[in-house]
Amino acid sequence: MVAEPSFKRYPRHAGVWKMLTASVCVALLACLHAQELRGHISVILLGATGDLARKYLWQGLFQLYLDEAGKGHSFRFHGAALTTTEQGQEVIAKVLESLSCPRDTAPARCAELKDQFQQLSEYRRLKTAEDYLALSKDIEAWVQREGLREAGRVFYFSVPPFAYADIARNINSSCRPGPGAWLRVALEKPFGHDHRSAQQLATELGSFFQEDEMYRVDHYLGKQVVAQILPFRDQNREALDGLWSRHHVDRVEIIMKETVDAGGRTSFYEEYGVIRDVLQNHLTEILTLVAMELPRNVSSSEAVLQHKLQAFRALRGLQKGSAVLGQYQAYSEQVRRELQKPDGFHSLTPTFAGVLVHIDNLRWEGVPFILMSGKALDERVSYVRILFKNQACCVQSEKHWVPDQSRCLPQQIVFYIGHGELGSPAVLVSRNLFRPSLPSASWQEVAGRPGLHLFGRPLSDYYAYSPVREQDAYSILISHIFHHRKDSFITTENLLASWVFWTPLLDSLAHEVPRLYPGGAENGRLLDFEFSGNSLAFSQQPLEQLVPGPGSGPTPSDFQVLRAKYRESPLISAWPEELIAKLADDIEATAVQAVRRFGKFHLALSGGSSPIALFQQLATGHYGFPWAHTHLWLADERCVPLWDPESNFQGLQAHLLQHVRVPYYNIHPMPVHLRQRLCAEEDRGAQVYAEEISALVANSSFDLVLLGMGTDGHTASLFPQSPTGLDGEQLVVLTKSPFRPYQRMSLSLPLINRARKVAVLVMGKMKREIAVLVSRVGHEPRKWPISGVLPDSGQLVWYMDYEAFLG
Amino acid sequence: MVAEPSFKRYPRHAGVWKMLTASVCVALLACLHAQELRGHISVILLGATGDLARKYLWQGLFQLYLDEAGKGHSFRFHGAALTTTEQGQEVIAKVLESLSCPRDTAPARCAELKDQFQQLSEYRRLKTAEDYLALSKDIEAWVQREGLREAGRVFYFSVPPFAYADIARNINSSCRPGPGAWLRVALEKPFGHDHRSAQQLATELGSFFQEDEMYRVDHYLGKQVVAQILPFRDQNREALDGLWSRHHVDRVEIIMKETVDAGGRTSFYEEYGVIRDVLQNHLTEILTLVAMELPRNVSSSEAVLQHKLQAFRALRGLQKGSAVLGQYQAYSEQVRRELQKPDGFHSLTPTFAGVLVHIDNLRWEGVPFILMSGKALDERVSYVRILFKNQACCVQSEKHWVPDQSRCLPQQIVFYIGHGELGSPAVLVSRNLFRPSLPSASWQEVAGRPGLHLFGRPLSDYYAYSPVREQDAYSILISHIFHHRKDSFITTENLLASWVFWTPLLDSLAHEVPRLYPGGAENGRLLDFEFSGNSLAFSQQPLEQLVPGPGSGPTPSDFQVLRAKYRESPLISAWPEELIAKLADDIEATAVQAVRRFGKFHLALSGGSSPIALFQQLATGHYGFPWAHTHLWLADERCVPLWDPESNFQGLQAHLLQHVRVPYYNIHPMPVHLRQRLCAEEDRGAQVYAEEISALVANSSFDLVLLGMGTDGHTASLFPQSPTGLDGEQLVVLTKSPFRPYQRMSLSLPLINRARKVAVLVMGKMKREIAVLVSRVGHEPRKWPISGVLPDSGQLVWYMDYEAFLG
Repeated sequence: MVAEPSFKRYPRHAGVWKMLTASVCVALLACLHAQELRGHISVILLGATGDLARKYLWQGLFQLYLDEAGKGHSFRFHGAALTTTEQGQEVIAKVLESLSCPRDTAPARCAELKDQFQQLSEYRRLKTAEDYLALSKDIEAWVQREGLREAGRVFYFSVPPFAYADIARNINSSCRPGPGAWLRVALEKPFGHDHRSAQQLATELGSFFQEDEMYRVDHYLGKQVVAQILPFRDQNREALDGLWSRHHVDRVEIIMKETVDAGGRTSFYEEYGVIRDVLQNHLTEILTLVAMELPRNVSSSEAVLQHKLQAFRALRGLQKGSAVLGQYQAYSEQVRRELQKPDGFHSLTPTFAGVLVHIDNLRWEGVPFILMSGKALDERVSYVRILFKNQACCVQSEKHWVPDQSRCLPQQIVFYIGHGELGSPAVLVSRNLFRPSLPSASWQEVAGRPGLHLFGRPLSDYYAYSPVREQDAYSILISHIFHHRKDSFITTENLLASWVFWTPLLDSLAHEVPRLYPGGAENGRLLDFEFSGNSLAFSQQPLEQLVPGPGSGPTPSDFQVLRAKYRESPLISAWPEELIAKLADDIEATAVQAVRRFGKFHLALSGGSSPIALFQQLATGHYGFPWAHTHLWLADERCVPLWDPESNFQGLQAHLLQHVRVPYYNIHPMPVHLRQRLCAEEDRGAQVYAEEISALVANSSFDLVLLGMGTDGHTASLFPQSPTGLDGEQLVVLTKSPFRPYQRMSLSLPLINRARKVAVLVMGKMKREIAVLVSRVGHEPRKWPISGVLPDSGQLVWYMDYEAFLG
Repeated sequence: MVAEPSFKRYPRHAGVWKMLTASVCVALLACLHAQELRGHISVILLGATGDLARKYLWQGLFQLYLDEAGKGHSFRFHGAALTTTEQGQEVIAKVLESLSCPRDTAPARCAELKDQFQQLSEYRRLKTAEDYLALSKDIEAWVQREGLREAGRVFYFSVPPFAYADIARNINSSCRPGPGAWLRVALEKPFGHDHRSAQQLATELGSFFQEDEMYRVDHYLGKQVVAQILPFRDQNREALDGLWSRHHVDRVEIIMKETVDAGGRTSFYEEYGVIRDVLQNHLTEILTLVAMELPRNVSSSEAVLQHKLQAFRALRGLQKGSAVLGQYQAYSEQVRRELQKPDGFHSLTPTFAGVLVHIDNLRWEGVPFILMSGKALDERVSYVRILFKNQACCVQSEKHWVPDQSRCLPQQIVFYIGHGELGSPAVLVSRNLFRPSLPSASWQEVAGRPGLHLFGRPLSDYYAYSPVREQDAYSILISHIFHHRKDSFITTENLLASWVFWTPLLDSLAHEVPRLYPGGAENGRLLDFEFSGNSLAFSQQPLEQLVPGPGSGPTPSDFQVLRAKYRESPLISAWPEELIAKLADDIEATAVQAVRRFGKFHLALSGGSSPIALFQQLATGHYGFPWAHTHLWLADERCVPLWDPESNFQGLQAHLLQHVRVPYYNIHPMPVHLRQRLCAEEDRGAQVYAEEISALVANSSFDLVLLGMGTDGHTASLFPQSPTGLDGEQLVVLTKSPFRPYQRMSLSLPLINRARKVAVLVMGKMKREIAVLVSRVGHEPRKWPISGVLPDSGQLVWYMDYEAFLG
């Protein structure tokens, strides 16, 4: 018999399906108690003979059986794999024999329970479509024979991701339960390698399963302390409301340190590395739990998900400088051995990473979130530590302080996930902070441990609570799957949001050489890092490279700024960072001088990506910049509303204006959007801007104009063959670009050339060709508008990075 | 013989004088070495028998003699007072006998030096104009007799300020030295009681002395460690450049703790209190030395002064909430006894204060500067402590940290001014920070002191330097007067800038009841305080008042918000702070709701002073406020440029926009300044604004309009009898105000009444009368425009503080 027609398949018309499920849900809810209590549940563990299954999953299933079977449910457990029935049965038999009962179970009772569980468990090979169909028929037959009603089927994928698609297809086509019974599939990471692959995998799975049917497992969400973060925030709302913000939090550390290395797993590890293995999932999930706005109802999966996604949207984009990478010394040798690589092979895969995350919202702006994980470190420990600012002033001298009362001693909340010196999961709250509330049925105060110091203070300085009964994460998650608690799992949206966040960093670090470290306690201070503003770096540059690296970074002399001539004007060339730093310094010097002489500084800026690095540089570290006396003008603009992401003004606003204090009326965006229209001739926007310039800028002579150069030789929004702006009387012109958005507004060449100083910033390999070309041509603005930039009496300086200048 | 005509008097024509002195200076400089070396200097110590003179000044003069007499100068020291010659001579003889020589002086040599000094010192009564004239003549006679050239005269005022004017007049008219010799007057604080009195005193002194002749003494500037702050910053520029900013500094503490109380000095203390006695001068001077931008040349007095003044300008204004005040328990009794006050008298004079100062510039924004001083505390110690942020992440577990190397342990720089457990002045720099450079001739490393902990770390964790030779502040300052080092003294500008800063706080605290404290170690945690945002408060509200206070503050029930009706609309009334907090909450709730429903929130705000408190409230603590989706409009504007301090927009910009992230294009100032003209009819500004409103605000119906009410019943800029804006079709109108600036732009009543919600904020005693009146009138917008506010279909809510509502 083939699959019965009543087997539900995932329909293409999701809308109809939603309505259907909605009504089904209502019906289900109504009779849930009545029906489900007598329902039969089949659990199919795919990859039942693998490591994870043997170590955690079978035990989790046994726990599920112990917890739920007594409540009237009927269960069967089908361990499945590709191996032969005989071999599989043998492995499973062994696993089942080694299961353990809860601590307080009498040995006889335990044996009895295990025996029951073994009776309900079987191994079967699942390889072909027929195998799946057979399984489905067996389940139906069993249900019928036993007089049960089928409640649902859980498929737990403990298999490598390349096998997902086949299995999913088979389940969808041959192994869905009948109407009225649910299907749940649990999936184990990795869920892709970057945003593209994650998206692909998600689309693929989405063609077989509904979102509601999928349970993506991040086992950290099953860890008792992690699962307690939101309830803790909820139950201590009153105390935390006044504390949980940038005004009070000094920093947040989200840490997972391991002592083990990747030996034996390099075939997996070499493809993923520590960021994909730990930071993108475990640590990021924790980050969102700590940072998200707290939903009114923390037990609403939907609300939690929405607030998580909101937190993701507020994350500031990561850059190369947001991370430090390390690799334990023996790693490359392990890879060579395990993956049969040639002798000269050196891996670039990081086994250690520290990443600085900022959250750009009013609550967290400026608070560093430090994510750190590594293998072969000096200890095994995981925790989230929220360190509060010391905002007290203790008038008495220190010797009179009472440690657990003084507001001047560190105040912190630590979600101690496990291991470390404490050795068990715990929630710690400094006694000088507040007495936390935790559910007393499941959490108890930790017994005193004289001599034990944690995070700089003796244990006695904390209110410390640990779970009454320690539970394994997988047991908890399997129970949550059974109880349909989706907030413990990663939805597709959540997963993709995380990859959107991490992928740019991973791309930018792809060729980064990690710092080598010996491993264990010997690491010393080698991996310590420091942050400042947006970036972080290892604390010390070792005087001698302790272990020879797989490649060698640029030496200090490479970083010098080169001075030369280009088109008979001064040229400054350097590596990108040094170039931007030099340009920012020069702009500041020009600004200070202009303000000293004229009381103000008129600066016209271009759009594009290179200036953004400049804006960021100016926004931090240039304390002396006379922003209050600076007028900001645009050199060109795209005819889009100012709030359009394409607008040049947007880049200026996001990366500079938000961080410095330029008075509102000193900001002069181009009027490309008048009377709710874009660059309409009849609105005379160009003339309006020209008038504003004439009125405010003496002699219409900007103190500094910053330009770029396009690969076609355009500058500002003056493109080759432009009928306007290359000469004539007009100060500001409407132009056309060969690229979208086509309509532009631009300062004209004659106006640009009235400036006291013009700086042209050219960066990147892409510009190499045009840079060479323009170096050779004369004054031909019609062909190459940039060649028409030559200030009448001002100074022209070229800033080119080495890639643009030297190739 | 009367004063010779050649005696210079302070001329009225300062310009001429400046030119004169400039050319004199050049001449002087040229021959300074040649002449001054042989010059005779007269030092006249006024109040020579007083406490300060006996304790410090005579010793300082002796030191001056020891240091300088050997270099060819000739000195005479005239101790002066009002007492009879006989009595005075007796006192002076005793003082001179008790002078001490430098440590390494042999006793015989010391006796010899003291004898010489005594020979050159005399007491004389200075009371009448004749006395001064006689002194002058005596000096001239002496100079002539001894064949010397007179170099200059120093008058040191160690007298109460009420005596200043008389003495100054006498010196100016009868006791100036002849041409080519300088006059220097040293003045001791107090320099006024508030800005007005300081200004008065300064004007008075300025009529007798030139600015350059006056040396206002703040003896803290003579303390070796304080005097080292700028040189330290200069000599360690490289290390500090990267550290000396908000990005790295966690907080700055400027502390002066005393164990003594005010007993015996209450007649002075009762008039001044701790803020005037210590914070306004000593601690503020230190604050500017720490915070100022470092001049290129730190030995240029002029540059230092200018940078100090710049720092003053950046100080954020203090409010009542910026300070906590205390008074030691025995103080009132001391005052009653010493000043013969009645039994029931309780003083409000603070003997303890903690003040939170913020500096609103790019370098220091957000860094708390804590100034604290008090009498009857548990220890005597003064220091400036710069605590750095911990921006490191130490990967190894704590047990592996090397204390003086770990970047994760506290990093601080302490200017230890004196006393305390260290017992001597010192400069401390955490070893995990950098090795400081100090002039090795005058500073030496402090010897190890096992067991001594300072600021949470053992002394061995610091590079610690103390002066090779400890010198008294007054000796140093007297030497600086002699060497014309004006940067160690308080110029008039500097003094007035400090009073401008402190006076508003002093005024607002005038009736504040200080917290009583028992004194000494018993103070426990009673005086500990905490800060958050802009304000600070004692850490704990004692459950029972430990000692009965002289008055009792409002009880919690006073703070309740009262709900009633006013003009048939809801009225909310409360104390000002609670009222503003409630209004801010209500605005946020309205904003959140509007954004949820419509995606944006259109808020129209009025100018004036009451909204400023609201802006400040909204700027801090309202994390959930959807600023990114909020459009800000003005309810009315004065026809002045937007950057004019009178502009309503300025208040909005300074107190709200600078602190939150409203996108540029969501900010809609009124176009009162088009084509460089103010509210010209032909520029159609009102129509432009009306069009902008129509285009962006659905149905021209603001989500919330915030209005005020003038004492004449005006609202927005709609004044009684206004020919425009009270009715008709116009949405935005030009109006006339009876007050300057006369021209205004305003939303019209019909537009206001289209709003979904209108809130009217009325605060202060001044509004009491109009509030009563308006409560009784009907709809008479022509007489009282506020009575025309009645939203067509929206809601009107009145927010009145108790003073306006209850009187």
